Amino acid sequence: MTRGPGIARTLLPKGFKANGVNCGVRRYRPDLGILISEEDAVGVGMFTLNECRAAPVLYSQKMVPSKHIRAIITNSGQANAATGPEGVETNLKMAEAAARSLGCNTHQVLTASTGVIGQPMEIEKIVGAVGDLVHNAGGSAEPFALAILTTDLVPKTVTTTVQLSGGQIRITGIAKGSGMIHPNMATMLGYLLTDVALPLDVAQDMLTSVTNETFNMISVDGDTSTNDAVFLMANGASGVKLNDDADYAAVKKALLEVSKVLSQAIARDGEGATKLVEVNLKGSHDLALARKAARGITVSPLIKTAIHGADPNWGRILARLGAEGIPAASLDKLSLKIQGKKVMEKGRPVAFDRGELSTLLRQDLIKIQVDLFSGDQEATAWGCDLSKKYVEINTEYS
Amino acid sequence: MTRGPGIARTLLPKGFKANGVNCGVRRYRPDLGILISEEDAVGVGMFTLNECRAAPVLYSQKMVPSKHIRAIITNSGQANAATGPEGVETNLKMAEAAARSLGCNTHQVLTASTGVIGQPMEIEKIVGAVGDLVHNAGGSAEPFALAILTTDLVPKTVTTTVQLSGGQIRITGIAKGSGMIHPNMATMLGYLLTDVALPLDVAQDMLTSVTNETFNMISVDGDTSTNDAVFLMANGASGVKLNDDADYAAVKKALLEVSKVLSQAIARDGEGATKLVEVNLKGSHDLALARKAARGITVSPLIKTAIHGADPNWGRILARLGAEGIPAASLDKLSLKIQGKKVMEKGRPVAFDRGELSTLLRQDLIKIQVDLFSGDQEATAWGCDLSKKYVEINTEYS
Repeated sequence: MTRGPGIARTLLPKGFKANGVNCGVRRYRPDLGILISEEDAVGVGMFTLNECRAAPVLYSQKMVPSKHIRAIITNSGQANAATGPEGVETNLKMAEAAARSLGCNTHQVLTASTGVIGQPMEIEKIVGAVGDLVHNAGGSAEPFALAILTTDLVPKTVTTTVQLSGGQIRITGIAKGSGMIHPNMATMLGYLLTDVALPLDVAQDMLTSVTNETFNMISVDGDTSTNDAVFLMANGASGVKLNDDADYAAVKKALLEVSKVLSQAIARDGEGATKLVEVNLKGSHDLALARKAARGITVSPLIKTAIHGADPNWGRILARLGAEGIPAASLDKLSLKIQGKKVMEKGRPVAFDRGELSTLLRQDLIKIQVDLFSGDQEATAWGCDLSKKYVEINTEYS
Repeated sequence: MTRGPGIARTLLPKGFKANGVNCGVRRYRPDLGILISEEDAVGVGMFTLNECRAAPVLYSQKMVPSKHIRAIITNSGQANAATGPEGVETNLKMAEAAARSLGCNTHQVLTASTGVIGQPMEIEKIVGAVGDLVHNAGGSAEPFALAILTTDLVPKTVTTTVQLSGGQIRITGIAKGSGMIHPNMATMLGYLLTDVALPLDVAQDMLTSVTNETFNMISVDGDTSTNDAVFLMANGASGVKLNDDADYAAVKKALLEVSKVLSQAIARDGEGATKLVEVNLKGSHDLALARKAARGITVSPLIKTAIHGADPNWGRILARLGAEGIPAASLDKLSLKIQGKKVMEKGRPVAFDRGELSTLLRQDLIKIQVDLFSGDQEATAWGCDLSKKYVEINTEYS
């Protein structure tokens, strides 16, 4: 698996092109990006569960699932987070402009938007730049990945190839994380592109399952954005389709891996984050509860600050598990490891070398492993530590 | 209503005594406190919903409701947060020691505990100090209020008198807030004492209702402790009982007021807090949802940091309401006021004087008012801002 944006460009799957330009909403940085499939592609999406959904989310949600998606256009700098008629109209203008340049129908174009809210969108600048954006698109993911960043520190791209029974296919993923822009909220956007042919229902099932295990398991601060979305486009340009269960499993596994790498990159790039935190909770009788509890640990400010301080604070972890509703009977059985070192067994603290563990907690990947010995369900969540820098970034003195 | 610990002592209701001493667990500060009723009192409690409940919580939960409660003993400095047999035994020793000194049965003594966990409790020191603690108890709340503090900055006491049809009664409340002690979690303890005579079921109903509207509506960091408890003791020593609905309403209202003052004091004294935040959400069709959403706003790190920075960030508030599940139809109707200034109407931002509002947000009481125009349910929650100091306090470099 090659991770961008290192020396190598991040290749797009066959039949896909991408681009990013500065349309003038931001001063210098690219602020408008597009992902294009040369032929109609299967397009599916997963969207924020926030009751307050922005116009692009409401629009894209209506357009998918579809077998005829040609592009996803995304602007950054000014978010279309509106829910009223102006937001709907602005969003439609963006989709229409892309459709015109591509020579397709508007309903073949998906949209997303991230950035500052509360300003009137400079939609003329966006519409005016779409022609160049479309016509100069090329085969690498970076121009798009850069154009969708807000306060993220690094563009997030990953690509992998998979050998199926019918030949080789490629999956490329691009994401933006939880950079915060005054006065808006975090936005998480994920884009998965592949040149394998996928039936519509298979594409949707795979995306739902993969998103629930990856993008939905990351948290920087526990808030949910109005604009979050994850898209999957499968255009079949490789000429390869799924012939058997092994092909199905291989594609799903690769999508999961790509999504996991992107999710980890988003968590690691959380505001003010200095450490990536991975919480694995197994032995649960209930998958939903396992996911909730694993996420709960990554969300807890008490645990996040303890990790920031390299403090092996098992008490806060135990308390959070209880608060998330892990039954007392399971808490009495649990084992807890931090950085591979056992700190609790059968629900009770065990002696450990505090100095050694504190040193291990100064690494930039923190692993917390809980085993409840109460079932065979398992969940992994990713988050980051909580630093003074987070407070600084989000404390916007007017 | 007189608030301690100003010039005036905070009087206890008739028939109650209180004390606090240093038993040697801490170096200098008082670390052991007791509240005593000279005669059997009605005692009821509300306890943490955390599945991981400490020995004193499990014990006290079994003892109440009761008509024969004589005392609540509480130690600080070392928390008995254990769930295993040692914790149970240690807790029982503390209750037994108090019962011996009081000349009553052990099951007439309730217990609570707050402080550092993970050390063996120095129970001999506690037991050894109980005699003096009981015998020197007096009529003011402060010695107890000081003895239960951990990293709280100020003792929290309040007292009020109520004129009922049968005569005057007094209610006194004492609380400790969310000071954090390495390596433990926040603990919230509340004690309500009154000399009115209350039937057992009335006492429990009142405490449940009052706690749900006050202590359960405060949040410093969204974590739930294993040791949280709120107690109500009613000993009837005033000779006054509830004769009619007006008496009932007056007592309930006073208990609510006392609990509200204590809850606000706890929120204001949150770790690193510089501002008390009050969120009022009305016009909801669903009380549980209204409470959840109001609390959600006080918990959101994005909103807490914005308030810290005097930033009137309505976007983050709107997004959180959506994330808590307030229906889109209500979000489209809502009005939002910050410090009494309208920033949203009918679900849309309205023009406001940003400079003026930012100045108002530098005050130390921040009021956020949401009206959903979708029903007649209403909830109020209290919290605090999120500062770098919070991160500092909870980042314990080992």
